[in-house]
Amino acid sequence: MAKIAILGFGNIGSGVLEVLRRNAASVAVRAGQPVEVKYILDVRDFSASPDAKLFVKTIDQILSDDEVSLVVETIGGTRFAYPYVKACLESGRSVCSSNKELVATHGAELIALARKKGCAFLFEASVGGGTPLLTPMHQSLAADVICEVQGIVNGTTNFMLTRMEKDGFDFDAALKLAQDLGYAETVDPGDDVDGRDAARKVAILASLAGGRHIYPQNVPARGIRGVTPADMAAAREMNCAIKLIAWAKRGADGAFAAGVEPMLVPLSSQLAGCSDVYNAILIKGEMLGDVLFYGKGAGKLPTASAVVADVIEALKKGAQVHDTLYWREEAPLEGFLTDSEPAAYYVRIKALPMADAARIYGACEVLNNVQDEMTLLLAGMTAADLAAAEQQVQAAGGQVALTLKKLNG
Amino acid sequence: MAKIAILGFGNIGSGVLEVLRRNAASVAVRAGQPVEVKYILDVRDFSASPDAKLFVKTIDQILSDDEVSLVVETIGGTRFAYPYVKACLESGRSVCSSNKELVATHGAELIALARKKGCAFLFEASVGGGTPLLTPMHQSLAADVICEVQGIVNGTTNFMLTRMEKDGFDFDAALKLAQDLGYAETVDPGDDVDGRDAARKVAILASLAGGRHIYPQNVPARGIRGVTPADMAAAREMNCAIKLIAWAKRGADGAFAAGVEPMLVPLSSQLAGCSDVYNAILIKGEMLGDVLFYGKGAGKLPTASAVVADVIEALKKGAQVHDTLYWREEAPLEGFLTDSEPAAYYVRIKALPMADAARIYGACEVLNNVQDEMTLLLAGMTAADLAAAEQQVQAAGGQVALTLKKLNG
Repeated sequence: MAKIAILGFGNIGSGVLEVLRRNAASVAVRAGQPVEVKYILDVRDFSASPDAKLFVKTIDQILSDDEVSLVVETIGGTRFAYPYVKACLESGRSVCSSNKELVATHGAELIALARKKGCAFLFEASVGGGTPLLTPMHQSLAADVICEVQGIVNGTTNFMLTRMEKDGFDFDAALKLAQDLGYAETVDPGDDVDGRDAARKVAILASLAGGRHIYPQNVPARGIRGVTPADMAAAREMNCAIKLIAWAKRGADGAFAAGVEPMLVPLSSQLAGCSDVYNAILIKGEMLGDVLFYGKGAGKLPTASAVVADVIEALKKGAQVHDTLYWREEAPLEGFLTDSEPAAYYVRIKALPMADAARIYGACEVLNNVQDEMTLLLAGMTAADLAAAEQQVQAAGGQVALTLKKLNG
Repeated sequence: MAKIAILGFGNIGSGVLEVLRRNAASVAVRAGQPVEVKYILDVRDFSASPDAKLFVKTIDQILSDDEVSLVVETIGGTRFAYPYVKACLESGRSVCSSNKELVATHGAELIALARKKGCAFLFEASVGGGTPLLTPMHQSLAADVICEVQGIVNGTTNFMLTRMEKDGFDFDAALKLAQDLGYAETVDPGDDVDGRDAARKVAILASLAGGRHIYPQNVPARGIRGVTPADMAAAREMNCAIKLIAWAKRGADGAFAAGVEPMLVPLSSQLAGCSDVYNAILIKGEMLGDVLFYGKGAGKLPTASAVVADVIEALKKGAQVHDTLYWREEAPLEGFLTDSEPAAYYVRIKALPMADAARIYGACEVLNNVQDEMTLLLAGMTAADLAAAEQQVQAAGGQVALTLKKLNG
């Protein structure tokens, strides 16, 4: 019998309890022993819950009980989650977490600590919700070298872009619907729409693929605020969809660059077919070629079932799992990771005279030039070229309203 | 240092050697020890190979060397592979195989033998080539119950259907191209085009999902020989693609039904977007909802890298892997598994008077009725209804030229 504790009894935490109970028999067979939740840590009042007796208010009650061999962390954020998870690993208890912010910020340190203490730190649910992704990446692709990752990893913005594309919504209307449906935060939706959530997730993917910690603050992230119905129509004319893509790729020196940005995705790409709240992540392996993982990127029971799969894995393998699931610590960089490879770009610019546009961008295709706004298709620009050009646009009194990189399949 | 043997030095077997050598350093880190190929069993003459000294002609030379702890089987078929693999497992050596026929026919027995002898029998590469599929199914979905699998698991027929759809090829021209490119067998392409290869693969998926061995001979399989350019056009008008779908689903009693048949796949389905030689497999979990795995279903290095990932897994976990990767033995059934749920069908019938069609099929939509041929869209028929109707068609002098089930997403 394995006795475990759940830290944080919100949506995912309560889902973990539900999955463990509903599938108790098969979990016991697969874990090699029954799994019982002995404690739930949550500062809120659950005295009316049928499980009231399980609730505790301090982590010490859990740490002081030697019967507890594993802890599930579903608090979110890092303020409490980080010290609690650290204390659990320090005590030799394995931890299974769904917390992308924790992993993106402290993953390398916590993995190293788990290895040192002979336990496991697992976090399959931190990217892609319930969709198996990190486990196949480190395990099934263990014999390969991952050279690139391109993914739709934020379901909220993908839902919004789908509504803009299919129903003609503008950004504000799409955001309002996403908020009404509970997909986006009502007070500050910036984590989703400005790409910060996606930056955390791709930092995890890039760290795992590249073997060195990449911090979310070093991942340049642009969100979808600038996208308009007219851009959607222009994309469609180019046989593309607009998607918020989180990407990471191995450079010639082996180090990974990463970014989050809205992109023109050719309709022939499997990523273009990923709509609504679904996530899709394309992994390019040197030997394997392209593999795509697709599924719901969120949701209580899907995410909880991924956490429970980690519980089974941690109980069976312990620290051994870190033979393939690891990356090493690195100090954060100054500034941003950048991609030095040139790409094609779609840019929409306001209040810039055509003569200035020609001077700044040179030969390029003008897709549209009406009233005070033009859209250009640029070939073979690097991110640095593009940033330099944007400064010149501003110096000439113009404003770059939207930049879309073209995904090369 | 782990010393291993490779049985069969064809396309996949030589790929395994190549992957082990090219990625030797990372394989060693992940496996916890270097992996060296000590023997290659192949009856052909490799005396001119730079690895000539590794080749042996009998399995006994491998079995009698205690240093060999693991064996890779890439012979294919069952005539030699079955007794060799059995002997290796009997001796306590783990086996990693890419052989779908072996697993579909003897999987339960070989898994049971591996467990008994404390070693591992792994076969990720047997379905989906290099695409991680079986490992996520048994491991990442360990906390869930799989209720349905729908997949494009045969790259050759998917390539042919893509050419028919996009380039207007008929069946014969598509087959010829597939043969010219080396995708289809030149002498007897029946394994691919008649669905037998897909039946073996879905037998493996259904066995793993349902926990009981399902034999390929019990999986009803219809191939793509009857599909014409006119059917492609009719499908397109219904916003569908025609795909050869291997499916398996859990019945009310927990037992799985399975089948292989050409289907009308709505363009909104992720499966419709899977073209050319790619495979795509949709797994429906009770908790998780839909998850899709997509990648190249064949190819030397992709498949070999999946075999090498299994080698790493076997070296690290041994028999423990079978806590989640297993199904129990069952005697083969008499006859075929069938699906009792009704579905919509597209049927194309030759030489049947309309009056007979109305009598046999009742109210149905007539899509086309020209010369000696009609196409009907039937709603709510079971497989048994459909078979009974087909007998009546034959009794009335007609002939059912093609049947396409409509996939329900």
